[in-house]
Amino acid sequence: MIIVLRPNLTRKDETAVLKEIKRLGYHPHIMRGVARTVIGAIGDELTHKSLESLLTLFPHAVESVMPVQRRFKLVSREAHPANSTINVRGNVIGGRKIQIMAGPCSVESEKQLLGTAEAVKAAGATILRGGAFKPRTSPYEFQGLGEKGLKLLAKARKETGLAIITELLSEEHAELVAAYADIIQIGARNSQNFQLLIAAARTGKPVLLKRGLSTRIEEWLLAGEYVLSNGNSSLMFCERGIRTFETYTRNTLDLSTIPIIKMESHCSVVIDPSQGSGRADLVSAMCKGAVAMGADALLIEVHPNPAEALSDGAQQLSPEGFARLMAELKPFIEAAGRE
Amino acid sequence: MIIVLRPNLTRKDETAVLKEIKRLGYHPHIMRGVARTVIGAIGDELTHKSLESLLTLFPHAVESVMPVQRRFKLVSREAHPANSTINVRGNVIGGRKIQIMAGPCSVESEKQLLGTAEAVKAAGATILRGGAFKPRTSPYEFQGLGEKGLKLLAKARKETGLAIITELLSEEHAELVAAYADIIQIGARNSQNFQLLIAAARTGKPVLLKRGLSTRIEEWLLAGEYVLSNGNSSLMFCERGIRTFETYTRNTLDLSTIPIIKMESHCSVVIDPSQGSGRADLVSAMCKGAVAMGADALLIEVHPNPAEALSDGAQQLSPEGFARLMAELKPFIEAAGRE
Amino acid sequence: MIIVLRPNLTRKDETAVLKEIKRLGYHPHIMRGVARTVIGAIGDELTHKSLESLLTLFPHAVESVMPVQRRFKLVSREAHPANSTINVRGNVIGGRKIQIMAGPCSVESEKQLLGTAEAVKAAGATILRGGAFKPRTSPYEFQGLGEKGLKLLAKARKETGLAIITELLSEEHAELVAAYADIIQIGARNSQNFQLLIAAARTGKPVLLKRGLSTRIEEWLLAGEYVLSNGNSSLMFCERGIRTFETYTRNTLDLSTIPIIKMESHCSVVIDPSQGSGRADLVSAMCKGAVAMGADALLIEVHPNPAEALSDGAQQLSPEGFARLMAELKPFIEAAGRE
Amino acid sequence: MIIVLRPNLTRKDETAVLKEIKRLGYHPHIMRGVARTVIGAIGDELTHKSLESLLTLFPHAVESVMPVQRRFKLVSREAHPANSTINVRGNVIGGRKIQIMAGPCSVESEKQLLGTAEAVKAAGATILRGGAFKPRTSPYEFQGLGEKGLKLLAKARKETGLAIITELLSEEHAELVAAYADIIQIGARNSQNFQLLIAAARTGKPVLLKRGLSTRIEEWLLAGEYVLSNGNSSLMFCERGIRTFETYTRNTLDLSTIPIIKMESHCSVVIDPSQGSGRADLVSAMCKGAVAMGADALLIEVHPNPAEALSDGAQQLSPEGFARLMAELKPFIEAAGRE
Repeated sequence: MIIVLRPNLTRKDETAVLKEIKRLGYHPHIMRGVARTVIGAIGDELTHKSLESLLTLFPHAVESVMPVQRRFKLVSREAHPANSTINVRGNVIGGRKIQIMAGPCSVESEKQLLGTAEAVKAAGATILRGGAFKPRTSPYEFQGLGEKGLKLLAKARKETGLAIITELLSEEHAELVAAYADIIQIGARNSQNFQLLIAAARTGKPVLLKRGLSTRIEEWLLAGEYVLSNGNSSLMFCERGIRTFETYTRNTLDLSTIPIIKMESHCSVVIDPSQGSGRADLVSAMCKGAVAMGADALLIEVHPNPAEALSDGAQQLSPEGFARLMAELKPFIEAAGRE
Repeated sequence: MIIVLRPNLTRKDETAVLKEIKRLGYHPHIMRGVARTVIGAIGDELTHKSLESLLTLFPHAVESVMPVQRRFKLVSREAHPANSTINVRGNVIGGRKIQIMAGPCSVESEKQLLGTAEAVKAAGATILRGGAFKPRTSPYEFQGLGEKGLKLLAKARKETGLAIITELLSEEHAELVAAYADIIQIGARNSQNFQLLIAAARTGKPVLLKRGLSTRIEEWLLAGEYVLSNGNSSLMFCERGIRTFETYTRNTLDLSTIPIIKMESHCSVVIDPSQGSGRADLVSAMCKGAVAMGADALLIEVHPNPAEALSDGAQQLSPEGFARLMAELKPFIEAAGRE
Repeated sequence: MIIVLRPNLTRKDETAVLKEIKRLGYHPHIMRGVARTVIGAIGDELTHKSLESLLTLFPHAVESVMPVQRRFKLVSREAHPANSTINVRGNVIGGRKIQIMAGPCSVESEKQLLGTAEAVKAAGATILRGGAFKPRTSPYEFQGLGEKGLKLLAKARKETGLAIITELLSEEHAELVAAYADIIQIGARNSQNFQLLIAAARTGKPVLLKRGLSTRIEEWLLAGEYVLSNGNSSLMFCERGIRTFETYTRNTLDLSTIPIIKMESHCSVVIDPSQGSGRADLVSAMCKGAVAMGADALLIEVHPNPAEALSDGAQQLSPEGFARLMAELKPFIEAAGRE
Repeated sequence: MIIVLRPNLTRKDETAVLKEIKRLGYHPHIMRGVARTVIGAIGDELTHKSLESLLTLFPHAVESVMPVQRRFKLVSREAHPANSTINVRGNVIGGRKIQIMAGPCSVESEKQLLGTAEAVKAAGATILRGGAFKPRTSPYEFQGLGEKGLKLLAKARKETGLAIITELLSEEHAELVAAYADIIQIGARNSQNFQLLIAAARTGKPVLLKRGLSTRIEEWLLAGEYVLSNGNSSLMFCERGIRTFETYTRNTLDLSTIPIIKMESHCSVVIDPSQGSGRADLVSAMCKGAVAMGADALLIEVHPNPAEALSDGAQQLSPEGFARLMAELKPFIEAAGRE
């Protein structure tokens, strides 16, 4: 920790601060600069107490307190220099091949789901997405088919061979969802619902962790740390747009997270352009950018009839639109040296 | 719903849009304006399907789709024109008296909690706050004492007569927390964890719902709707700062929510200046503003020794600071015509 | 400056960084911590080169670079511990009396302006606001009366004795506006238009500097530094709402700036609740909060007939509404120990 | 305009609103829906008065007012369906070839500038960037060489044949800058400095308009409208990152603006990855994404010795890094069907 002292302190004030730093388990190291005196507090910030309380205890003496250590460990590149990969029914995420996860926002019926599954498989997807439990802003909106939806996903997997990704909304459903899903998705609104993260981690299934609407990258990495530190090393980070002042798009897709997560962490990066823009007509451009920038997988909403969708109709592609997109992406996937 | 068509459409395109609107259960009503043709789709937006899918289905014909109905019902002033009040062990929230909820960020020990409880009671607080389960950004930070913390809160209530507010983090703890708490707090990170809101609502205990870091006011009201629509009419909205680009303060306390929630809803408004600024030296000014603007209650962090706190030391007041604050607030409470 | 090195560096890498720090004029001071090695670079950050380039030059060796000095000088409390005050035609801003600046968003006609001036004076205002040059988002909106508007403001001053505040939009108008105005307003969109700030400063007239829509407090103070460092010590900071994700209000009024600017700077703080919320029905609550929190002045939009206004009709008060507001504020002004 | 009335209005209230709508020049058209009555006000929103004042005039009767027309005209695709192109000394922006604008953040010396110019030309750039007038957050930072810098740019043009882009900071310098520059850049802080936009437009030189830190896309298009409506049709929009809550990067580069501006407008889109991320190590990935998503040009900061730069050292590439980047971009430019 670095502690910046206010100018013109008495020696007595300074001594009091130093004493407190020692009491909290750090070794203080003083540097007298031109305009400020700075104390380096030497000790492990992850095991010792935070020194931010110095601001409250000595408001007239301490100007700022700055941590120097990164707070995440297991998700970091330092801990695991190589890229980590996840094998989901033979499909490797984080390897040379860019995996495509596609399917409807919500599972609505057998016909809707199986039709979509066959269409996305034919166009090149390897993983089927579909929500059985849906988090909806209003209690009066469609909340998903629940276990019936999970069963339909399992049926679609059996018929098409696609792996399954679906969202977990409640700790109480962790075992149930894990019994059907190949990948457990944690949604943006639950990105810092740590109890749910722990429950998901403990099922042992791979976890796809969406970024929260206003989660900073460091906080997102720390949320991922909840998964790894609970014994589950199969973690993907999924950017799906952050909340900004812009109203033209539903969210602002932050594609810079691709190179950043790759630098800071060994985990895979997935991009969700459907949630990320909220508009089907922007999905194609977003996917091209994501592929060019190094994404390991894409998560795309496809519905046989978007106008009929029980949720998020404006952002789902038709099967024809999806097939067109797959063709358009091909040269960019090659340019990126991927498959 | 209002549907704005793009300029220079063919009659055929227009007919297709109208047909789809009817198929989705609305009655279309055309208005031809100077620069745009607009369709009013008449029907109940809360029971009919969303028309946003028209944007995807007819991208060349539909420019925008705008809802006209408010999406919240039970929390609205329309549903309940008078202020609603909540009686917690004889303390009325939403009435003439401004209630003060104070106590430590986390329950750490019997000595810490009882000392704080007595001090805040002596200075005028009526409700004791204290976290037994703590949501922490990092898995390596103090996570709370759990049930032991709840027992200490019950003991403090018994000794001081103060009512108890504490946070619920997990659906699985809903019964447990409700067995001890007089008010259940839902924290900012769980503001749209709808499963947790339903579980809290079903305990029957009053619920204090914090605003999420990037929750729009309409979404916050809708999250409150999850509580009322699950049979619990004792709801308070608590503003605790939103996330903005500013880095001087930890959050930006949005005091405009006080008059806005009062206009839109019958529920009480509570202000948390401690989380709202993240700095103890701003708490006093924030409280004065909140009282002047019509807050029904304040939620303030007080710790016997902020520098020793296991969480959020920088934003907790000392007991002396809290007593001084209570004295400073008095003239503003009177100016606001409150007690 | 504090330089945090990456872990597991070779001695050679470390030596290269140290050499570069010395070459840029700083004296390096090494601290070896538990998880990181940190270098304190001793030297005046305001006169030496920035060390942020170390991040580019040694990407594999340097993890982060953190400044320790505050970048503002003349606006700081350190430079001038007492509150500074500004005397505008006998009205002192920053003293015991809270000054009320009121008037129309735009000067539209003699009748409109003089009528408003008399009404706001009668209700207690001491300074008349009114825009002669208007910055409008669209080139097709009313751009103000220009010099004719300035002349009407001068006439209103002559007839009522009110001082005049009006906005400067263009360097080329600095002399012209200064010839009429008692206070020059720099609007939010020009908050970091440094050339305009310098031109305003050089007129010698008091300057009211609005906060930009996304200006951090430190940047705002530095923008103020452009005024003071150009020989003009009469500076007021005016908070008028920042841009956030919230759409219910036009802007989010950040009232925490009142205690913060008071801590960091000696300059006065003015609150603009009209721009700050964009809704006339929120102005009263905002003013009460501002007064309770220590604002030195309020800047309020009043129009004889808001529905007729050529700009921003939704946020202007009627003269009756303004008179009612003045009466409502009285107890809060007293509670704050002000006049 | 669409006016939504509050529920349960008296006929008298409704009549008053209708009368006011007519008085302001619109023809009202009533639609009675299930939960709300809606009025379509027919008339040209660009020439009639705004109806937002109804909110203030009839707060108890009017719930919301929504415009239906787009506010921009000349920049829109409606006005000019084909892409517009700009020819700068034989280099066409907006055509099949992606133009690369590269050079130092600030012009610092003849040696620095000419060295960079030759290096970026050799690697494939066609336009040289370099700031002669610099807007700096603090008055104590390097403010640029002024006219001397412009002369150095002209010299570099003469020696290398590269066209020149440089920033205009002050209306008073418009003629001077236009005498040297091939393209005039308007920076982010001046994005809504309309006087400066008009002055730039009137020089007749092509204008590159950066997006402001918190400028919504609609506002940005309207700022562009100031250029076109002042007789200058050579306009480029340049995304350079917006301000969000994220602190890992200096700004959040919003690449979705590429497809959006292309849909809404005929003007070219330029991406600035250097300002957009503030970190040299992210520039390469950002450029790949921009090219894949359809950018017409890139604006990249290159400095012969970033650690020596007088401004923004952390985000400038070395000449070697720039040459490497050009090579890496090649397959993506081909995949995008560009040159």
